Amino acid sequence: MSTADSRQRSPQQLQPKPPDPVSAWLQIFAPIAQDLATVERRLQDSLQHSDPFIDELAQRCFRLGGKRLRPALLLMTAQAIGEVNDAHHTLAAVVEMIHTATLVHDDVLDEADIRRHEDTINARWNNQTSILLGDYLFTQAFYLASSLETTFGCRTIGRATNIVCEGELLQTAASGKFDLDRKQYFRIIEAKTASLCACCCTLGAHYAGADHETVKRLENFGLQLGLAFQIADDLLDLVGEEKTVGKSLGTDLTKQRMTLPLLVLRDQLATSEQQELQTLLDHPSSENSAALLNWLEESGALRQTRDLALAHADQAIRQLDFLPDTPAKHSLQQLPRVAVSRCV
Amino acid sequence: MSTADSRQRSPQQLQPKPPDPVSAWLQIFAPIAQDLATVERRLQDSLQHSDPFIDELAQRCFRLGGKRLRPALLLMTAQAIGEVNDAHHTLAAVVEMIHTATLVHDDVLDEADIRRHEDTINARWNNQTSILLGDYLFTQAFYLASSLETTFGCRTIGRATNIVCEGELLQTAASGKFDLDRKQYFRIIEAKTASLCACCCTLGAHYAGADHETVKRLENFGLQLGLAFQIADDLLDLVGEEKTVGKSLGTDLTKQRMTLPLLVLRDQLATSEQQELQTLLDHPSSENSAALLNWLEESGALRQTRDLALAHADQAIRQLDFLPDTPAKHSLQQLPRVAVSRCV
Repeated sequence: MSTADSRQRSPQQLQPKPPDPVSAWLQIFAPIAQDLATVERRLQDSLQHSDPFIDELAQRCFRLGGKRLRPALLLMTAQAIGEVNDAHHTLAAVVEMIHTATLVHDDVLDEADIRRHEDTINARWNNQTSILLGDYLFTQAFYLASSLETTFGCRTIGRATNIVCEGELLQTAASGKFDLDRKQYFRIIEAKTASLCACCCTLGAHYAGADHETVKRLENFGLQLGLAFQIADDLLDLVGEEKTVGKSLGTDLTKQRMTLPLLVLRDQLATSEQQELQTLLDHPSSENSAALLNWLEESGALRQTRDLALAHADQAIRQLDFLPDTPAKHSLQQLPRVAVSRCV
Repeated sequence: MSTADSRQRSPQQLQPKPPDPVSAWLQIFAPIAQDLATVERRLQDSLQHSDPFIDELAQRCFRLGGKRLRPALLLMTAQAIGEVNDAHHTLAAVVEMIHTATLVHDDVLDEADIRRHEDTINARWNNQTSILLGDYLFTQAFYLASSLETTFGCRTIGRATNIVCEGELLQTAASGKFDLDRKQYFRIIEAKTASLCACCCTLGAHYAGADHETVKRLENFGLQLGLAFQIADDLLDLVGEEKTVGKSLGTDLTKQRMTLPLLVLRDQLATSEQQELQTLLDHPSSENSAALLNWLEESGALRQTRDLALAHADQAIRQLDFLPDTPAKHSLQQLPRVAVSRCV
C-alpha cells in the first residue's frame, strides 16, 4: 500500500469502459442461435410441472442461468466439428439445468440476495426451498441425460458434476486459509468451474462424431476457458458493481476466500505487510474492503491477475488452431476474450 | 380430548414393547448377507477420496444410512426372481448413496442434530458442508449408475430421485396447511419415500431378468412397503423416543406438517374441537406436544393410523403371492410388518 491517499481512489475509475456485453454475446452465439432456441424449448418442456408451486419455482430458475454460456459452448463445439443433432439439444439443456442447480445452491451458501437482477430463490422463498429446488434440478438433469441411447452422456455429466461438488467442498475447507497456495487455488477453480466447461466441449465434440484426440483438444479448450472465466469472476467479485453484474458481489471477502488477486498481492509482500493484509481479511467490513481494493490496484495485483486470466484465454484459443475455418470456430475463438473482458 | 386427566398418561406406556429391531433385521437380511457385504465394499471404494476433508465427510456418511434397507430390498427382490449379479451390487450402492444424500439434506431442512446416534453433518460442521456433501453424494451416485451397460439404471434412478425431490418440495409447500387432505398427504409420502422403495424393486427385478408384469408387481410391493414405512415414521416422529430411534424427533410438529395421525384426528372432530387442535398446532411447544399426543392416543387416532400402516404392509405382502417359495420371498414377506412394528 503506497500512500493513504491512493486508498481513496476507486479502482473502477482506473479501468477502461467494458464493451457492451449483450451485443458481444449475441454476435458470438449467432451461428447457433436457432439451436439455442431449440434448447430453450427443451428446457421449458422439461421443467413444466402440473403443481403450480413447483412450476413457479422451475420457471423462475429458467431465467436464472442468463446467457446460456454452457449450452452455447456445447453447441458451438458440435458445429465446429460437424453438425448439431438432437442429442446435442438434449445435452445442452442438461448442462444448463446442472449449472442452474449449482447456482441455486451457491446462493444459499453465499447467502446471496440477487442473481440476474432478481431476488434469489432463498431471498424470495427460503433456504429449504432452494436446497430442494437445486436437488430437483440436478435429478431432472440426470433423468433427461438418461433419455439418450448410450451411457456416455450420463457418465460424462455425472463425473463432471461430481468434480464440481468436490471443488465446492474444497473451497469451503479452504475458507479463511491465508496460506492457500496457487496450486490449491487452481485445483479448486478447475474443479468447481472449468470441469463443467470442459464437459460441454467433450459432449459437443463426441456427439458430433469427433475422434478421441479431437475430443481431448476441445476438452482442453473448455478447461482453459473455464479457468479464464473463473479468474475473471473472482476479479468481478472484488471490483464489479452489483448494478452492472446483476448479482450479489463481495462474497469472496465475506466468506474469507483467498482468490487469485489476493494470492498475487500476498506473494509480493514482505512478512510485516502480509500480516497487515491478513488483518484486513480477518475483519471483513466495507471500510476494509475499500482499503483492500486500493491496495490490490496500487500493487498491480489486479492487473497481474487480469493478465493471468488473459493468458488462460489465449491458451484456450490456441487449442482451436487445428479446426477448419467456420463461423463456429470463429465464435469459439472470440469466447475466451469476451469472457475475460467482463473484468478488463 | 375426553378428560384433562387422560392428558397426563404417557402414550408410550399404553403400547406393547416392540421386538428387538436389530435381530429382526439381521434375520430378514440373512439370505442376502454376503451380497450386502459386497455392496458395503463397493460403497467404501466409491466414497474413498484422496483429500482428507472429503474423505472424512464421506466416511461419516457411510455410517449415516444405518440398516441398508434400500440396498437389501433391491438385493432380496433380485434373489426372489433369480440371481443377484454385479449390476445389482452397483445399483444397491447407488440407491444407498441417493438415500444418504437425501438424509444429509433432510437434516439441514429439519435443523436436526442427531442421526444414527451421532451428530449430523450440519451439527458437526455446518449447513454449507451438508448441502455440498449431499450434492456430492447425488452426483457420485449418478456417476456410479452410469458405469452399467445400458441407460435403464440411470433412467429409473433419475426419475425416482426426481420424484423424491418433488415430494419434498410439495411437503414444504404444505407446511402449516391445516386443511391438507389425505389424497395430498399420500401424494407427498408416495413421492418422497415410496418411490425410491419402488425403484429398488424395479431395479432388482429388471436386472434379474424379470418380465414387465413381474417388474410391475414388485414395484407395487415396494410402493406399498414405502407407504407403510413412511406412515410408521410419521408415527415414530410423534411417539418415539430419541434415545431408542437414534435421530432427532418431533420435527413434523415443529415444521407444522400435517401427518396422517393428525389428519385422522382432525377428520373425526367437530368444528370447535378442530379449532382447538389448530391452536395447539399453531403454537409448537413441549407442553402442547404432550397435550396433542394424549389427544391422539385417547381419540384412537394413533391406533387408526397404525392400522392404516398395517393395511399398506398387508397390501405389499399380497403382491408377493405369485413368487416361488424361497428364503428371499420369505424375507420380503416379513419386511413390511417389521418396518411397521417399529411404531406398534
